[in-house]
Formats: sequence, C-alpha cells, structure tokens
Amino acid sequence: MKRINTSIRAFSQSQSRRNGSPRLRWVLSAGSAILLAALLGAPLAGAAPELSKEENERAQFIYFDRCSGCHGALRKGATGPNITAEKMLKRKFAELEDSIFNGTDAGMPGWGRTGELTAAESTLMAKFVQLPAPIPPEMGLKAMKATHKVHVPVADRPTKPQHGRNIDNHFGVILRDAGQAAIVDGDTKKLISVMDSGHAVHIFRASATGRYFYTVGRDGKLNLIDLWEEKPRVVAESRVCLDARSVDVSKYKGPKGDFVDKYAVVGCYWPPQMVVVDGKTLEPIKVISTRSSTYDTNEYHPEPRVATIVASHHAPEWVVAIKETGLVWLVDYSDLDNLSMTQIATERFLHDGGFDATGRYLLIAANMRDQIVVVDTKKRKFVTKFETGVKPHPGRGANWVDPEYGPVSATTHLGEGLIAVYGSDPEGHPEHAWKVVREEETAGPGLFLKTHPKSNHVWTDSTLSKEEGVNQEICVFKKDDFAAGPNCWRAADHGKVVHFEYNKAGDEVWAAVWDKKGELIIYDDKTLKEKQRIKGDWLVTPTGKWNVYNTVNDIY
Amino acid sequence: MKRINTSIRAFSQSQSRRNGSPRLRWVLSAGSAILLAALLGAPLAGAAPELSKEENERAQFIYFDRCSGCHGALRKGATGPNITAEKMLKRKFAELEDSIFNGTDAGMPGWGRTGELTAAESTLMAKFVQLPAPIPPEMGLKAMKATHKVHVPVADRPTKPQHGRNIDNHFGVILRDAGQAAIVDGDTKKLISVMDSGHAVHIFRASATGRYFYTVGRDGKLNLIDLWEEKPRVVAESRVCLDARSVDVSKYKGPKGDFVDKYAVVGCYWPPQMVVVDGKTLEPIKVISTRSSTYDTNEYHPEPRVATIVASHHAPEWVVAIKETGLVWLVDYSDLDNLSMTQIATERFLHDGGFDATGRYLLIAANMRDQIVVVDTKKRKFVTKFETGVKPHPGRGANWVDPEYGPVSATTHLGEGLIAVYGSDPEGHPEHAWKVVREEETAGPGLFLKTHPKSNHVWTDSTLSKEEGVNQEICVFKKDDFAAGPNCWRAADHGKVVHFEYNKAGDEVWAAVWDKKGELIIYDDKTLKEKQRIKGDWLVTPTGKWNVYNTVNDIY
Repeated sequence: MKRINTSIRAFSQSQSRRNGSPRLRWVLSAGSAILLAALLGAPLAGAAPELSKEENERAQFIYFDRCSGCHGALRKGATGPNITAEKMLKRKFAELEDSIFNGTDAGMPGWGRTGELTAAESTLMAKFVQLPAPIPPEMGLKAMKATHKVHVPVADRPTKPQHGRNIDNHFGVILRDAGQAAIVDGDTKKLISVMDSGHAVHIFRASATGRYFYTVGRDGKLNLIDLWEEKPRVVAESRVCLDARSVDVSKYKGPKGDFVDKYAVVGCYWPPQMVVVDGKTLEPIKVISTRSSTYDTNEYHPEPRVATIVASHHAPEWVVAIKETGLVWLVDYSDLDNLSMTQIATERFLHDGGFDATGRYLLIAANMRDQIVVVDTKKRKFVTKFETGVKPHPGRGANWVDPEYGPVSATTHLGEGLIAVYGSDPEGHPEHAWKVVREEETAGPGLFLKTHPKSNHVWTDSTLSKEEGVNQEICVFKKDDFAAGPNCWRAADHGKVVHFEYNKAGDEVWAAVWDKKGELIIYDDKTLKEKQRIKGDWLVTPTGKWNVYNTVNDIY
Repeated sequence: MKRINTSIRAFSQSQSRRNGSPRLRWVLSAGSAILLAALLGAPLAGAAPELSKEENERAQFIYFDRCSGCHGALRKGATGPNITAEKMLKRKFAELEDSIFNGTDAGMPGWGRTGELTAAESTLMAKFVQLPAPIPPEMGLKAMKATHKVHVPVADRPTKPQHGRNIDNHFGVILRDAGQAAIVDGDTKKLISVMDSGHAVHIFRASATGRYFYTVGRDGKLNLIDLWEEKPRVVAESRVCLDARSVDVSKYKGPKGDFVDKYAVVGCYWPPQMVVVDGKTLEPIKVISTRSSTYDTNEYHPEPRVATIVASHHAPEWVVAIKETGLVWLVDYSDLDNLSMTQIATERFLHDGGFDATGRYLLIAANMRDQIVVVDTKKRKFVTKFETGVKPHPGRGANWVDPEYGPVSATTHLGEGLIAVYGSDPEGHPEHAWKVVREEETAGPGLFLKTHPKSNHVWTDSTLSKEEGVNQEICVFKKDDFAAGPNCWRAADHGKVVHFEYNKAGDEVWAAVWDKKGELIIYDDKTLKEKQRIKGDWLVTPTGKWNVYNTVNDIY
C-alpha cells in the first residue's frame, strides 16, 4: 500500500473553491491535433461535412452510446458543454477530432485512447457534430405497450423461493457492453444467472420486498428479474424510452395505502419524460412529461432529462431530479389519475444523489455547477446548496459519523481527485450542516465512493484519471482518522477499476475491473486484503453492482 | 315577445344524446363552392400553393386572429378539427375557400359572410392552410421582462378612491377590434374611461380586493387598470405570451398566508404555458410549461393550451384547465419556489367553465367531446363527466335552485340552440347530481348564458346562429317555470347580440351588440323591458363585459 502523491490532484481545484461562477473547464488537450488533421484530410473549419446514410446511422448510434449522456440528444449541453452544429462548425476540425479521440483535461473521456472508438470513428463523430442534431422521435403509451411482454404471468410465478440461497446477499452485476445482467451469490461468490438486458444497463434497483431486480438499459429497455426462481430470469420486459438512466419502485405502505412493489417508474433521457409501469408486469401505465422551464432563467427547455429517481421511505412519493431545468420533483404515486407533485427549484444540471443517513434529506449533485443541493423530503422544500469541487459525482453518496463533525455525507468528483465531506445533521450539528468540513485527495478524478454503517472505511475510485495505472487504483479513508489521508493501491493491471458495493453483512467490498476481460475483486473491509477475484468469459465490461439488501434499505 | 320555432334547433342534437363516440361535425356547407373555384382560378387539390412574403405575413396574422383559437397554432385541432397541411392538401381548394368564407354547419363561422374577411383573404387563408404551419417562437422570462412597464409605481398610487363613484358597480367592457378596454359606471351608465389594451381582449378579471381590473389581449398583453383613480388608467403592463386567453389573481387569505392580489397568472395559448406575475406591478416571475401528455392515450402533445383559469376561494390555488391534454391542474401559489400542483385527468379539449353555487365543484366544458367534466377542488379529484349537447360552452356557467331538482347548473352550446340543465348538489340531491335534468331550446347556437341569485331569469344568446336575425335574439328562461320555454326577442337589427352581465344589485342585465357601430343594451331583469341603450363612437365591437362585484365574488 502506498500514499498518493499530491501532484495527482487535478487542475483548478483551488480556483473551484474561490470562484462560484461558471469557468472554462472543457479545455482542449493540445496533443497531436495538427498532425491528425494533416493525416486524415479533414474538412476546413466552417464547411459543413457530408455523411452517407450508413455513416449517419453509425454516427447516430455512437452519439447515443457515448456522447448524448453528457451533451444531450439535442446537444444543448449538461454535464458536458453545448455542442450544437453552429458552435462546432466554428471549431477547427482537427481539434474536434483530437478532443474526441484523446479527451479533454476537463473530464471528457478520450474515446480513441481508451479503445472505444477507432481513429476513423473519431473523425466520423467530428463530422457528425458539425451537422444539425437529428431530433429523435417521441415515444407514447401505444408504442410502449407494443414492446411489453410478460414471460411469466404473476399467477404462474412461484409462491416462495425455489432455492435455499440467501437472496438478501445476491448481487446484480452490469455487463455493460455485452448488453447483459448477471446475478452472483454473495455468500458463495458463484454466478447464478446471466440474462440479456437492454444496451448498457445503467442501474439495478431491488423491489421493495427484495424479491425482484429491475434493470433499465440505456436504450430504455426495462427488465424484471425474479430472484425467487431456481435460476433467476427475466419474467417481464418493456421499453418505455429511447434513452434511459433510472428506475425505482413504489415502497410506501401506510395510511395512504399499500404500494409495496405496486408500481415502478423509469426516468427517460429521451423522450424527456418519466413513465409509470406496473411493478409486477411492467405494463406501461402513465407518461409524465418533464418538458418545462429552467428554474432560474425561466426559459423553455426542450430536453429536461430525468437524471435520477429515488423512492421515499416516508411518503408515497418518488424524488425525481430533472437535470437541465434544475428542479427536483416529488411525485406522489398514490393516485395516478389525480397526480400531485411538488416541483422544487434547486440548481441546474442535476445528476446523481442519495439520502442522508436519516432518509429525510436528499443530496444531489448539480455537477456542472460544482454544487450539492439539499432537498427536505419531509417539508417538501429546498434547503440549500453549496460548492464542493469540480463536478461532484456522489452516486448514491456515503453517510457516516465523523468523530469531530458528527453525521456527515460525502462525494467524489468527476473533474478532480477529491473527496469532499459535509455535515448532514442540521438538528444535532447545525454549525456544520451543509458545509464542507473535510477535503482529502483521492488518486484522481473518479466516479464513486461507498461505505457501510458497520465499516470504518470509505472507498473511492479514480476511474476517470488519465494517468497510466491511476484509473486502476483504489483509495480507502478511515472514518476515525480521515485527516490521515487514504490508503491507495493499484487493484488491476488492465481495464479501469470502478464502483463499490458492500455485502449485506458490511464486511466485504466488491469492485469491478471494467474491460472486455473483466473481473470482480472482493476485499475484506476490515483488513483491506483481497479475498477473492472472480473471473470468467461472462465478465464482459462489468461496471456497477448492487447488493439486494443494501439497495432495498438505502444503505450507503 | 315570441316563442321560438323548434326548427331553429341545430342538426344532430338527437344523435348527440345517443352516441358518445366522436362524429363528423365539421361538414362542408355545399353552397357556392364550385362557382367560387371557377371565379378565383384556384389551385388544384394536392398542389402546394405559393405565397409571397407579404401574403404569408398577412395570412399568419389572420390565422392567429381568427383560426388558431379553435384549430391551434400547430393546427392539430381542439374546438375545431385538425387542419394540418397534409390533410388540407387532400381537400378540394374550392371547398376549403367556401368553408372559410361561408362557414360550416358544425359551428365554424363564415368569415367572409360576416364581413371579417374578404373573398381574396378567404382564398389566401385556403392557400395558407395548405402550407406547413410555421412554428411560433418561444417566450421566456427575459423577453417578458423587456415588455414590462410600470406607469404608476405602487408607492405613487392613491391610498383611497379619488372619486365618489360606486366601484363595485363598474363594468369593464371589451372593445374587441379597436384593441381597447372601457370602464362604464353601472349606476350612471356613463363612460368613465377608454384605454388601449392588447389585441382583442379576451377577458377582464377583477382583483380580489376589487380595486384593479386585469385585462389580457389575445396577443398576450396584460394590463392593470386602477379603478381608484379619478379616471381609471393602465398603471402597469407586460406581455407574457404570444397568444393568450385567460388571467386571474391570487385570492387566498388564511393560515397559509395573505395572498390577496399578491400574484396574477396568465394562461397562454402560445407558448403553451402559464405565467405568474406580480399582482400589483405585473412583473413576470415564473413560467410554468404545460407541454405534457394527453390524459388518455398518454401521447406527448406539443401545444397543450391553457383554456381557462379560476382562483379557488378555499385554498391558495388556481384551477387551470389544459385544453389538449384534458387535465385540470390545481396550482398552489403559496410557495412558488417549491411549487405544488395536482394534475387531474378529465376529458380532452377543455374550454371554459366555472364553479357550482357552493364554490367547491368546478364544471368545465370538454366541448369537442360534448361533455361537462366535474372536478372537486376540495378533495382535489375528478368526480365525473357527462354529455350535454353539441359543444357545450358555459362561459362561467349559471347556478340556481330548480323547484323540482334543487341546486342546478347549466350551459349553452356552440353547436346547437340548446340549454342543458344538470343537478349540481351531490350532498343534498344525489339522485340528480351531474345528470342533465332539463333541456330546452334557445334561439340558436350561442356563446353565453347568465343568471344572478336574486333573479328568476336565465339569459341566453344565439350569437353563432346563421339565420338572418336569429343571432340578434335573446331568450330568457324562468327558473320557476323552466319547462314553459323561453321568452325570445330580437334585440338589434345589426351586428350580433352577445354576452350578459348583471349589475351588482342583480336587477339589471347588460348585453352587447357586437359590430363596428356597437351598443350596450340594459334590461330590467324583472320586466325584461329595455331600460337604456348606450351608443357612441367608442363602442367599436363591444363583446364581453364584467361587473366588478360579481366578478370578484364569482356570482353567476
């Protein structure tokens, strides 16, 4: 184990703390731009390129797969900048190609460098973004219903688990580029099932009862996996978006009714909408458009995407973060025909987030604004927002009790190797609430952090680092001695290391090695020693993984 | 006085009661179609016409002024049918011209016949609708603020009325084609003030205190008129839509705060949105988009227009009817940054409506579906919907106590000369609630009906009738002998007679003669005798008129 060198920390971090105004972060890496342009016979800046039908179709798929997540289908920008054709035509073509192939210092991945795109594909994409964005079609209930299939009707499903495994400790694992989802037994570490899913599944969510896993592909395909089956399989499917990121279920049981697993909801990127489906059959029921105005300038936005959805434990509500408008919607699912919601103005370009330890406050990253926003789901109000670092990206976040500051939460960052820790106990520790109380360096810009109430450790990745080997590092902080900085080590010699999940007991941590020969690494949380490394032909580009119990109970 | 001939009653009324499914109502009147086509050298069906820049601009204005209200800016239809270019290109050109010039049996006005369009303009519009609909621009807060003017700052306004007149009995009068609004003293019947307003003001709404009148033009221009001034004038203005119909104020004072005259809200047709402004300065504050999915098929609609808005007397809420999606939104204005609303699924093509006598239930016409929908504003739920006749059009409606059926409400119809009366007392008379209990003929298809709690009469117009003189008739029913049918008489020998309003005392009724030499006719409500006829050069195309007291207190 080694301590990181402080020079790893990304540029502009100190500026970030000083200056709240938007700054130029998407700077071109100089590199081989001019050379590339000469080699490829690229068009001059300002001249609109031409593409064949085949090239156009290929470019549209690549754009959807690699670009639209950050830049938007209409290219108006969000986590990444606005890249409309008008703007891109003013750019030097060779520079455009270079930024696609090699990435930028501000967080754009180098798609050529990492092997996802060829040089020719980088050139194709540079041409594509100089052409007007094609507007994708709408998708309404009729089209959704045409995709709906129930493979095992509810009446034909088992009435009790058909096996003796411990479902609570099952893990759902994304096999991104294979378009598959795997179930692994967390007790035996054995693969139980691999199923075809939508393209590049973004998340798993467990049903409120823990019986089912829901997966949603980036192509909007929703699958329902029944964990009671001897070999878990997809028992229902439907496609409710053309581009999707989030799914959750109804969890409420109380005076307003029993909604446990009654509904699921999918958050779409395109069309910009959320879709309520039957929780046990995935039959599409209701479409709720998110097209609306920005919270601050009150200008109409044609593509406000659903960034994240979490189910409240307190009320029959979903908390839905709308990226481009900067609004958090609390959507009451107890009466879909008389649908109540509260639209809370927060900050623009909402991305991901999770609850504080009490489940009352939702902390969401407004990552292009370098801020975390706080919403009180009990009072249905905005609380505050505060700056953390360059593009915070908490995933669901991490909650623990700091010996000095009391209950805290934390985030990693896409734009720099930084973990920021902030007070999240306004009742018990108002002086620290919603203020950054600790900042420590990680190995580099990363995607996720994770902890567990029973652990003394906070795990961080540095997946987005461009330094050789650093994107394969893991850094772990001690809750009781945070200021000592992390223990960091290189966990793989290939791929990128990404995302952590605890087992149910909270004494093991799973990480993924993300490439075509992927691995799952399992660590002893107490000793930080590697316990096991799962390999296999089926482990194609593993990324996120979810433990059933921790997912049902929002343990992070 | 004479009794009407039953043959006046429009076609298809009996069918209407039998068959709930959509029927062909927009039938072409045969008439002079072939002759016209020969005379005007019209293009063949199927060939896309061409327009000069000037012709196109003229056609766009005429479309906005006369067509978009029923057919929509994007021509997808609502009160009128879908008239997309694709569909219109399949029509015979001469028939298109004829329907524009002469109108149709199903309720489309004959714009040539009534003198609003020339034959050449009818031909121009037939060409225009065969070309793709231009998409109007968006309008956000910045553009709105650029139009905002405060002519008299709040601090400079009088602290008490600067005159001895009885403001409660003032009338606001629309002078449609003059683009003006007039204030008339209901006691002296004297003109007090004429002010420039937006184009073709659609309604007046009195502020909750009764001090101010708000007017909104069909061009989205909002005016605030201070009735405390010696000569009432426009003290603030702003433009918040490109096409608008409705405005109301915040009226709530109670445990949630004092919102009396704090905000006003404008309902836009284009862009499809509602806009909250400061109640005393008209400064634009917040834009709420209405773009969303239809309540039934859950398909995205690009142009869901705000048909009508009323302020609840019970809660800090506006009740907002969204035409194309068939949703009624209850929008809570008590916390605009954490905005709560309930979206109630009802029926498509919502148009106009008002409260029952208790103020709890809102009755709104879904006029292309021949139905009235009922919303419970206390429980925030849909109650029911029921068929009445061909295109119900209640305005705010009319409420009274029927000797046989108890509390009832009523509507007139755009598509036939029919008044339908339905029970509106679900607690006291559940057996009659939301059922049509009486149907009587009026002189012809009309726009409005009106009554007053102190009156025994219900007044109806037949403004849309195409029979010579019938559109100048008034028919009055007796509440205590409704089945006897109406007293009808011809009230003018020019123009069209339209819209009624009571004075504050409830013993006088005002009607308008709608043409360039317009008149206001004032009747004694008890005797039905004409008391006075107001004429004057200023009375250019008077249409609606609003008594301050009755408007503040929702008396109808």
